Order: sequence, then structure tokens, then C-alpha cells
Amino acid sequence: MFISFEGIDGSGKSTQARVLAEALRAEGRDVVLTREPGGSPGAEEIRRLVLEGDPDRWSAETELLLFTAARRDHCERLIEPALAAGKIVICDRFADSTRMYQGLSRGNLRPQVDALHKMMIGREPDLTFLVDIDAETGLARAKGRQGPEERFEDFGLALQQKMRAGFLALAREFAPRFRVIDGARPPEAIAAEILAQTRAALA
Amino acid sequence: MFISFEGIDGSGKSTQARVLAEALRAEGRDVVLTREPGGSPGAEEIRRLVLEGDPDRWSAETELLLFTAARRDHCERLIEPALAAGKIVICDRFADSTRMYQGLSRGNLRPQVDALHKMMIGREPDLTFLVDIDAETGLARAKGRQGPEERFEDFGLALQQKMRAGFLALAREFAPRFRVIDGARPPEAIAAEILAQTRAALA
Repeated sequence: MFISFEGIDGSGKSTQARVLAEALRAEGRDVVLTREPGGSPGAEEIRRLVLEGDPDRWSAETELLLFTAARRDHCERLIEPALAAGKIVICDRFADSTRMYQGLSRGNLRPQVDALHKMMIGREPDLTFLVDIDAETGLARAKGRQGPEERFEDFGLALQQKMRAGFLALAREFAPRFRVIDGARPPEAIAAEILAQTRAALA
Repeated sequence: MFISFEGIDGSGKSTQARVLAEALRAEGRDVVLTREPGGSPGAEEIRRLVLEGDPDRWSAETELLLFTAARRDHCERLIEPALAAGKIVICDRFADSTRMYQGLSRGNLRPQVDALHKMMIGREPDLTFLVDIDAETGLARAKGRQGPEERFEDFGLALQQKMRAGFLALAREFAPRFRVIDGARPPEAIAAEILAQTRAALA
């Protein structure tokens, strides 16, 4: 089973991905926790190339190609072998983030995103948790942990609002695999719901 | 006018690209001499990522995506602005090298190469010089200048023979823009033919 976590910056998805991995491991399940962009040594190098430096360093089109290259490497070297070995793979962001960031916010490249995904990746998650939170809260949280990878979190409130709406639209587009989780509740309540949903999907 | 130079490793194409640039500049023309992979700061960073390190570091598919990303950046930041300003752009390798290396020798990815090129690049040279040389001579010359970027030159004589035949087939496929140049002659004779062909195309 392949599970992805999606949401705007500061939604709490990375924390929830880690908590779910720990909970499933405590049940004796074999879990691989990974993230995008990155997740394999080559893809992490591409991540550094894309996320560090000047915000205008790459066009949306070049960025899309670099992220697709990173995802291809990540799938080949980590995700597909783990799934083939019967493991549960939990990934913090996957192709839906590319549909949003390169497809909607940076460029208007959704047709190219979809064509590239179909041609070079193919894989979709079995289950996607969209941790949904209002744009103001997400932005305030994301600003509280400034690091060198500021390119995407630097684009302001209007973008975060557009992204939130975009993710909710994506959840409707791919309704069978999406679970929209209210991220405004206490982390423990969110974790409990995500674990229950995952158990139901695994059953 | 956009002119590319293609050929197997050790064919002499890089030397001939430089000599043509100098000859055209001596005539007072505004010439940009560049190369692939690379040619713009971002694309040069991607070049380092792809060409250095273990030969199995990237799959043919990931490599294709990385080279297409580098080409997109190179076109956006250098080639298209120079052509729009009326300059002559001379490029040591362009998309035909991807058609050969990722499309024929490393992977069997020609359909993906073509689809990516159409979707993300679009541009073809107006004139392409294929400097044609036998595989043994090319390999011997390439081995005489060992450097850190050995990934592609390390694959042996059988590959060089396959690549030579592939480039000649490509010259037939895109006959209107290709000029096949006999690279076994003295460099001065080759340069004179290339300059004459370029002048004819510019006229």
C-alpha cells in the first residue's frame, strides 16, 4: 500500500506522516517513510538544486522537469522496490504537489504535468491524506521554521489560499483515493482519524 | 540562425564549432558559442549532476528528464533571447544527441525523447553539422583526454559504432537541416567546408 500526505505548507502533514509511520510500525508492519522532492540519494541532490537559491532561478517548466526527474529516481530506487516487497510506503508529498505547484500556482502547466506523469511515472498512491488547514494558520506555522528551502513558502497568503482551494478541488477530482482531514483539531485527534482510515483501507 | 554540431565522442565537433564561431566573428557577425548539456548557469549545474559520478547513478529515463530540464533552461535563458536579438547561435550538441544517447544507446526511449522535446522544448536547429568519423578513431581520440565526465565515453567500441550509424540515420530522417561532414580529413579542410556551407545557408 502506497500512502501520500498532501497539503499546504504548515498544514502539519509531515508530522502526521511520521506519526502514522510510527503507529503502523508499533503494530508490527513494515513501513518505509519517505518524502518528496527527494527520498532517494539522487532525488535529494535534485531537491537541493531546485529548492535552494534565488526564487527565479528556474522557470516553472524547468522545475517541473527537475521534479519529475527526482520522482522517477525516487520511484525506481525506493518506492517501487518497497511496494514490490510488500511494504507500506508513506510519502510526504507526491505527484499531487506537482499538480498544484507547477500545475496551478507557479505555472499554468497542468496538461504538461499530467502528460509527464503518465509518460514517465505512472504510479498513483492508493490512499492520499489531504491535511486541510486555513491559509493564515498554515503560513504562520511555515514562517515559524525558516530554513534554506524558502523558495515555495515565500510566496504569501494569496498563494496559500489558492493552493488550499486547489488541493480541495484535487480531492474531488481523485475522490476514491483522497481523504480530506480537518487539520485545525489537536494533533492527537488528527492522528487517530488518519490511523483509523488507514486500518480501514488495509483491511 | 541556430547551428548545432553533432557526432560521436572524439569526432572533432567541439573544435569545429569553435573554429566556425571564430570565422564568423572575424566577418563581423554576432555569434554566441554554447554547448550542451549546459550552456546556462542552471543547465551547467544539471550537467555536473548528470555527467559526474557512477555510470549507473541515473536510469536512462531520469537522465532524459534531467537533460530536458537543462535544455529548457538553456533555451529560455540563452538560445531564444540570442536568436530573438538576431545573433547566430552555435551549439556543441543539441536535441539530436538526446535522440541518440537516451533514445538509442542507453535506453530505447525515442518515443519519450520526441514527446518530451515537442512538449517542453520545440526548437530545432536551422542547420546541423554531423561531423562523421569512424568509431575506432573517435574512441581513441576521446580516450586521449580523460577527465571527470567519463560516463558516456566509457561505454566502448560497440556503442560508438551503434552511435555513428544512429547519427547517420538521424541525418537522413532530418535531411533538410543536416550536413554530413567527413571528419577524417585535415581540420582545416573540414573547417573550410563548414564555413562554406554556413555562408550558403546565411545567404
